[in-house]
Amino acid sequence: MTHTRRWYFNRRPAKDIEADTLLLREEALPPAGAGQLLLRTIYLSMDATNRLWLGDWDLYMEPVRPGEAMKGFALCEVIESHNAAFPAGSLVAGLVPWSDYSLSDGSGLSLVPRIAGLKLAEAFGVLAIAGPTALVGLMEIGRPKAGDTVVVTAAAGAVGMLVGQIARIHGCRTIGIAGGPDKCRMLTESFGYDHAIDYKRDDVVARLRELAPDGVDVHFENVGGDMLDAGLTVMKNFGAVVICGLISTYNSAAGDRIPGPYMFRNLIMRRLRVEGFVILDYLDRYPQYQAQLAGWMLEGRLNYRLDITEGLENAVDALKMLYTGANNGKVLVRIGPES
Amino acid sequence: MTHTRRWYFNRRPAKDIEADTLLLREEALPPAGAGQLLLRTIYLSMDATNRLWLGDWDLYMEPVRPGEAMKGFALCEVIESHNAAFPAGSLVAGLVPWSDYSLSDGSGLSLVPRIAGLKLAEAFGVLAIAGPTALVGLMEIGRPKAGDTVVVTAAAGAVGMLVGQIARIHGCRTIGIAGGPDKCRMLTESFGYDHAIDYKRDDVVARLRELAPDGVDVHFENVGGDMLDAGLTVMKNFGAVVICGLISTYNSAAGDRIPGPYMFRNLIMRRLRVEGFVILDYLDRYPQYQAQLAGWMLEGRLNYRLDITEGLENAVDALKMLYTGANNGKVLVRIGPES
Repeated sequence: MTHTRRWYFNRRPAKDIEADTLLLREEALPPAGAGQLLLRTIYLSMDATNRLWLGDWDLYMEPVRPGEAMKGFALCEVIESHNAAFPAGSLVAGLVPWSDYSLSDGSGLSLVPRIAGLKLAEAFGVLAIAGPTALVGLMEIGRPKAGDTVVVTAAAGAVGMLVGQIARIHGCRTIGIAGGPDKCRMLTESFGYDHAIDYKRDDVVARLRELAPDGVDVHFENVGGDMLDAGLTVMKNFGAVVICGLISTYNSAAGDRIPGPYMFRNLIMRRLRVEGFVILDYLDRYPQYQAQLAGWMLEGRLNYRLDITEGLENAVDALKMLYTGANNGKVLVRIGPES
Repeated sequence: MTHTRRWYFNRRPAKDIEADTLLLREEALPPAGAGQLLLRTIYLSMDATNRLWLGDWDLYMEPVRPGEAMKGFALCEVIESHNAAFPAGSLVAGLVPWSDYSLSDGSGLSLVPRIAGLKLAEAFGVLAIAGPTALVGLMEIGRPKAGDTVVVTAAAGAVGMLVGQIARIHGCRTIGIAGGPDKCRMLTESFGYDHAIDYKRDDVVARLRELAPDGVDVHFENVGGDMLDAGLTVMKNFGAVVICGLISTYNSAAGDRIPGPYMFRNLIMRRLRVEGFVILDYLDRYPQYQAQLAGWMLEGRLNYRLDITEGLENAVDALKMLYTGANNGKVLVRIGPES
């Protein structure tokens, strides 16, 4: 019998995640039955959207309900298999409970190939969620042309650090917005941004106007709130605004009325297209996205930075970093050894 | 020498248009010079966007500045021509001063053909602004498919009364939102709406959920504020929201911060495309839109209602009706006789 630790959703937080929001318990798993897999978690991906699953908004998917195990996107090793699609020893990725071990019938899982030249953490950290999100959001929703000016918020975050580089690869001018001098330095030195704006120090609208006097063609939004308003203020006519995330609003109290962007009128004044997306809708095209992204990584054209927390017991603290901006790169939690 | 009355923008209103916002003066026009036309105004179109031209927002076009003549979209007769493109006796439409007579060099004007079977007021009222706006907004921005559910706000207004009928012509289910039982009756009896919601009496979200239990495919927004929030709340995944107008916000005080829709997060949760447009961008395709619309009118497939105010001196009162919903149909001001 396999014993595991597992995080459970205990009580809905009023606002920020609290000490009793999620509780870690030990339990025994039943043996893997017909068609089932026993999975060992290696890396757990921390994503901004995880907080939403603990709230009461009407979401793009089923939320986690109090009493249920918290779940997350993870890289796992198949320890024991009764399912020919996922042989023992193979690596799989998908939504699984936050735990050392778990049982699965394989639904929603995909096999993860080992890519020569890429570490497992890099491949998982970039290719599982952040990379496809950046690629789909920029190229399929934003659709910039070469020479366009692209602005990215949370530009040093897991997705933002990739969007700037993908935009550069496609011949765009790139402006990244992040908080603090260290992150801003990373934007221009490591992540291919032509310009960085420090929202903690700069007047964002004034700087955007200086850097893009003719306006912005594509705005890639990860934050919402003031950042989105600054972006809407400086858009060029017929520009596109990609709504990838609104992390500044995800810790709201359940009943809060959160104002949309005050410059919403610019949808008319500048004839803007503003469009949201959810990467889970694009899973059937993951192979092509991952091949594209892995190719750029192997060619050294796509830099990235991982922020790895050790140990399942620290998963909640790792997740909370996303909402304060304390992380430096894509946040993963290492649950167990790579092999 | 021609004498005319002309409205001038006197003082920017804090909020609603006030008694001294626009002032009517009498003046003498200089003789028409080389290349110029002397125009006699027949009908003046009152459009929601007119109020914006008196404000200090950064607009889609040059505003009217205090001290300048107020302008509007008008149908005029060419009284005297020194411009071969617009012979004396012809009808023209375009942006002209709010006045009995005006001079023009012809720029921005287009010739208006007389259409057998349509009264001049009908042709101008439907084909000049409202019809192309409804057609472009619904078919080129919203792009519904046959069988889709389309919701329209200010559905008894100049644009809204046409959107529902055009949607029906294309095989859509239509739900119109308007204020009061009389307007709601017009929606279903005259303007081809399958269902009407009275926002003054009904719980709009609850009624939308009843009438569209699977969600709404295309939402056509003319109002903004609570109406837009109701629409965003019931959108179907991958739906389209057309931002044609936000009239509920146009009388705001100059410095007001106007919250965008509180359900903005649904751009992600429902993967929505929200897109604004300005009909002036589509002037080069007016002939095709007008031919299409006139055809439907002559076939009796496009009903419409005009609300005609008599006399230039009453133009301001006519305009103000738009912001209270006091009008019943497309608002025109008759400045002079049709011939």
